[in-house]
Amino acid sequence: MKTDLFAVRWVTERMGGPAVRVLDQTLLPSQVQVVDCRDVGTLAEAIRALRIRGAPALGVAAGYGVVLGALADGDPAAAARLLIAARPTAVNVRWACERVLAAGDGASRMLAEARRIEEENRAACEAIGAGGAALVEARRSGSARVLTHCNTGMLACQGIGTAFGIVRTLFEQGALAHLWVDETRPLLQGARLTAFEAAALGIPHAVISDGAAAGVMSAGDVDAVLVGADRIAANGDTANKVGTCGLAVLARHYGVPFYVAAPISTIDLATQTGAAIPIELRDPDEVRTVLGGTWVAPVASPAHNPAFDITPAQLVTAIVTERGVARAPYETSLRRLSSVSASAPAEPG
Amino acid sequence: MKTDLFAVRWVTERMGGPAVRVLDQTLLPSQVQVVDCRDVGTLAEAIRALRIRGAPALGVAAGYGVVLGALADGDPAAAARLLIAARPTAVNVRWACERVLAAGDGASRMLAEARRIEEENRAACEAIGAGGAALVEARRSGSARVLTHCNTGMLACQGIGTAFGIVRTLFEQGALAHLWVDETRPLLQGARLTAFEAAALGIPHAVISDGAAAGVMSAGDVDAVLVGADRIAANGDTANKVGTCGLAVLARHYGVPFYVAAPISTIDLATQTGAAIPIELRDPDEVRTVLGGTWVAPVASPAHNPAFDITPAQLVTAIVTERGVARAPYETSLRRLSSVSASAPAEPG
Repeated sequence: MKTDLFAVRWVTERMGGPAVRVLDQTLLPSQVQVVDCRDVGTLAEAIRALRIRGAPALGVAAGYGVVLGALADGDPAAAARLLIAARPTAVNVRWACERVLAAGDGASRMLAEARRIEEENRAACEAIGAGGAALVEARRSGSARVLTHCNTGMLACQGIGTAFGIVRTLFEQGALAHLWVDETRPLLQGARLTAFEAAALGIPHAVISDGAAAGVMSAGDVDAVLVGADRIAANGDTANKVGTCGLAVLARHYGVPFYVAAPISTIDLATQTGAAIPIELRDPDEVRTVLGGTWVAPVASPAHNPAFDITPAQLVTAIVTERGVARAPYETSLRRLSSVSASAPAEPG
Repeated sequence: MKTDLFAVRWVTERMGGPAVRVLDQTLLPSQVQVVDCRDVGTLAEAIRALRIRGAPALGVAAGYGVVLGALADGDPAAAARLLIAARPTAVNVRWACERVLAAGDGASRMLAEARRIEEENRAACEAIGAGGAALVEARRSGSARVLTHCNTGMLACQGIGTAFGIVRTLFEQGALAHLWVDETRPLLQGARLTAFEAAALGIPHAVISDGAAAGVMSAGDVDAVLVGADRIAANGDTANKVGTCGLAVLARHYGVPFYVAAPISTIDLATQTGAAIPIELRDPDEVRTVLGGTWVAPVASPAHNPAFDITPAQLVTAIVTERGVARAPYETSLRRLSSVSASAPAEPG
């Protein structure tokens, strides 16, 4: 099994903690190295530096981060504030922090809640994978060609993934012919992380430049676009990695279904539309260099580096969650899914 | 004057030639270094390796390359075959080779013809710049925000450029507020070359990841998209750097005019539609690495690397040439422009 990739782990006191262990994704695919965050500042830095990223994994990390704040600094609320500020676009961070804070005063209660968030994440990925695969499979039985952006797999989710969980489920069902992996500049999470996961699992795939997506779609070589989400507004507008909105426009133009896959926790009913979602402007040097190394633009040239974009709901074919599939009008379908209590796991016998 | 950037120069025997001097664009912006090609094989390699690129500049280089073949190897026809094979997508290479071959048996006649191609290129760029600027200016007087892809400036054209020539003309007219420069993966000609030219000229600009174009368009921050062309079919379908077609789809979606700027020599009436234009598939390592250096994808991951894509004519607002502006239906407008003899330069007084 090569599937024990992880994004984040809680390190107990018995194992040398307390600490939040993060696999440093900025070094992949060339180096596999972990960082043990023994204080919340280090974890917040790891989030800001994208050592750990992906909305669901960030939620898990933030939950453990609040526990770390309670144990290491005695101030879980301050920990939550620091973690939320580290990635304002991802609603999961705030959501996880609030859940763990609400679990009670004792660190052991908080830790139990943070572990519950992690387990729920894993189960949600499985459900999203199955639900999404059924959608895609229905359209092209047995030989789906899927295009994805950024990384939404094990490294993003602490589970099989959201959009990538669907890809993996299709693959395990023998229904996947090919995965197109957008490299996802500037930080190349597609080339570095999604391709790494696909190669580890033996999924047939090819990395493409972000600008090549239109060509493969116009050639008729894409049956579905599958992406994750950093935050979904009440009306279905979706914040995700920069480049997602352009893919949605292309998918609409070429008649390719465009699916957003995300756990319910990504849906933020308090945010009415995408216009209210803050878009993080990151360091221009992420664009002017490659991963902080080679300069690819003149030092004299400015760069504009929005980390996310907003895909308007009308370009989204469906939103796949662990509780089911939402379709337009999203105002009602998302509210309905959000209010349903999580379905009980199937009982054996 | 910082405008004496060049892509290619003929080096006479008196100056140490015969040779075709090429500014090695693969090393920009960090190093400014020339390669003197003393045989056609070296020049063909420079074309294949993209040390020189841009359809108009390739035409100039190919013209001189045929002369080099006549002088160095005594076989100009063999030189033409080698040069045409080095970049099959660019029709200008074939066109320039045939023109120089047809000029007559003597190398001095051929050289005069190759020089004429270069001078015509410069004049064509000036005319395209003026004609295109008038189009954009009409839409947003005085404060145009333009987005461009790849490099179509001095380095591509031996003149002010085609799409970039329009940008530069707008800037010199005080009509340009901002230039968005797509970085243009995989070989980053936007970040490395267009930003280099914009910085050299003092044009206000910002480099963006290719995936960020949808975001700046949806924000209403783009008044026109200006791109070049490697080949334009009789029906207006346009082959250009990979990523161009996606921009055209976005421009249509957001109601932004999408202009193709190219000299008449780029129009290939013998090619009926874009479907007949060969798309060069280049080394996957251009995608898996950055400029042959840093690996950004796992060694185990394949990559798909089409160097160009085809923008269908129906997404092109207008095609700007040195002989005027073509609009749909392109079958008739392009044929009309192609058959008109070049307009005489305006007489003073």
